[in-house]
Amino acid sequence: MISVVILGAGNVATHLFKAFNNSNNVSVIQWFNRSIESINPYKNTVDITNDLNALKDADIYILAVSDDVIGSLSSKLPFDNKLVVHTSGSVSVYDIDKKHKRGVLYPLQTFSKTTEMDFTNVPICIETIDKKSFPILKELAKSTGGPFKRINSDQRRVLHLAAVFVNNFTNQLYRIGHEITESEGAEFDMLKPLILETAKKIQDISPYMAQTGPAKRNDKKTIKKHLKDLESQHHKDIYQLLTNSIQKTHGRKKL
Amino acid sequence: MISVVILGAGNVATHLFKAFNNSNNVSVIQWFNRSIESINPYKNTVDITNDLNALKDADIYILAVSDDVIGSLSSKLPFDNKLVVHTSGSVSVYDIDKKHKRGVLYPLQTFSKTTEMDFTNVPICIETIDKKSFPILKELAKSTGGPFKRINSDQRRVLHLAAVFVNNFTNQLYRIGHEITESEGAEFDMLKPLILETAKKIQDISPYMAQTGPAKRNDKKTIKKHLKDLESQHHKDIYQLLTNSIQKTHGRKKL
Ligand SMILES: NC(=O)c1ccc[n+]([C@@H]2O[C@H](COP(=O)([O-])OP(=O)(O)OC[C@H]3O[C@@H](n4cnc5c(N)ncnc54)[C@H](OP(=O)(O)O)[C@@H]3O)[C@@H](O)[C@H]2O)c1
Ligand SMILES: NC(=O)c1ccc[n+]([C@@H]2O[C@H](COP(=O)([O-])OP(=O)(O)OC[C@H]3O[C@@H](n4cnc5c(N)ncnc54)[C@H](OP(=O)(O)O)[C@@H]3O)[C@@H](O)[C@H]2O)c1
Repeated sequence: MISVVILGAGNVATHLFKAFNNSNNVSVIQWFNRSIESINPYKNTVDITNDLNALKDADIYILAVSDDVIGSLSSKLPFDNKLVVHTSGSVSVYDIDKKHKRGVLYPLQTFSKTTEMDFTNVPICIETIDKKSFPILKELAKSTGGPFKRINSDQRRVLHLAAVFVNNFTNQLYRIGHEITESEGAEFDMLKPLILETAKKIQDISPYMAQTGPAKRNDKKTIKKHLKDLESQHHKDIYQLLTNSIQKTHGRKKL
Repeated sequence: MISVVILGAGNVATHLFKAFNNSNNVSVIQWFNRSIESINPYKNTVDITNDLNALKDADIYILAVSDDVIGSLSSKLPFDNKLVVHTSGSVSVYDIDKKHKRGVLYPLQTFSKTTEMDFTNVPICIETIDKKSFPILKELAKSTGGPFKRINSDQRRVLHLAAVFVNNFTNQLYRIGHEITESEGAEFDMLKPLILETAKKIQDISPYMAQTGPAKRNDKKTIKKHLKDLESQHHKDIYQLLTNSIQKTHGRKKL
């Protein structure tokens, strides 16, 4: 049984708490947050605290807090030589105070507190500085039931960066789809099945193979018509740049 | 029972044939393609031909052929005053020869011949020039089992344009995610659950509400780091433009 203390009570901390709480191999023995109110609802399920000096002895301490406080919070922990991990995609493992055994448990998903999360769909990326800490972190990751992968810092860095493209930027393209359709009183809802199908398609074939459309076909007439139809210069710029990008990928044009 | 002749044997024609063939209200009485080979496998299921002069009398003729041949093929049809529709998102309904009753049956999905398509996930957009032709086209659309919607030409135009953003451009962002991860030996596969979750999220909440990440938070430190980490100028340009776009949407910055 792995004993865990979770620090932080945001999106990630809350989902991790639930996932570990459902596992037979992990016991969350304490939950810390600087403001106790947000974890108060859990006080009958787990020991809660807002006092760092009251932290219990555990196998692993998980800092699921904002990126820029990981370093300072780790320094304030009133013990040393214990395994302390953060959950960030972009923060260096060396940001954790070196008095600890240091590691990362990065769940590669988009969490929000209000949406349920099935952890079989959450790949967990793990990283430790010392080899000895690896097996227990691996056990912890496995306990969520999802896929997990040992990665190094460079790989975590690029995964996080790629996640910005496939999550934040993709979502912004959905937003532009919303703007364009509503401008003519068409319904964004009509695009939802296509959006889902586009994401499903690349579960089995590469994005390279999945590409279709006027940019890939180099259908100049349609491209020109689309650029003319777009009312906002901003939408035109994105259309042009991503069309160029597709043509670069598919050998239509050198940028 | 609505009798239909399908012309063309590409992605759309093939899926429409299957969908109508499964319906109790529609009878595909003939399938035309200029090259007979591609429809030969169906010769025991339906009457096939490559001869326009052999076309049978039907309620509706569906031109599921390349955009730029819709007009000429419609002119070559050796009859007039019948309902002739095309399946394109971008071609005008007036491209069909005016000797016919003209309409559009635009399936708002991405088709490929090799992937099965569940038509409950294919919104069908329909349009006719004369009102009298509408009810039968509506019946035909309904027979596929998916959602359908009467739209006008402007709405079809913007839906098709928006589809380029949420399908082709989104897929290109997946491709870039692939390029970035593989550059460090990380696995694109790790991003697949995130890609699916991103598409699922906006089935229930608007893309505006679903947005997260450094651009929306205006986290300048992370944005700067990402821009530095990206090796290709081309990736940098896309990162910058889509970051600006998110910030414009969320009131962070005027472009
Ligand atoms: N959200 C995601 O989709 C996602 C995905 C993968 C990884 N991550 C990473 O997971 C970590 C947490 O993200 P999140 O989305 O869960 O954040 P969040 O919802 O914004 O929650 C942040 C947490 O940090 C605490 N905190 C902030 N400043 C603090 C301070 N000075 N001292 C102590 N605690 C402080 C907050 O406490 P209060 O409640 O008192 O404000 C809150 O519990 C980050 O490293 C993030 O990069 C997030
Ligand atoms: N693919 C999609 O995801 C999708 C989605 C919605 C709407 N659409 C629209 O549906 C229509 C068909 O698209 P598709 O993807 O099915 O196309 P496709 O797979 O490329 O098939 C094109 C068809 O057009 C025929 N054709 C080409 N030139 C011709 C000519 N000069 N005379 C007679 N027939 C000719 C081809 O005949 P051969 O077999 O002899 O070459 C083939 O049967 C287009 O208007 C497209 O915009 C496509």
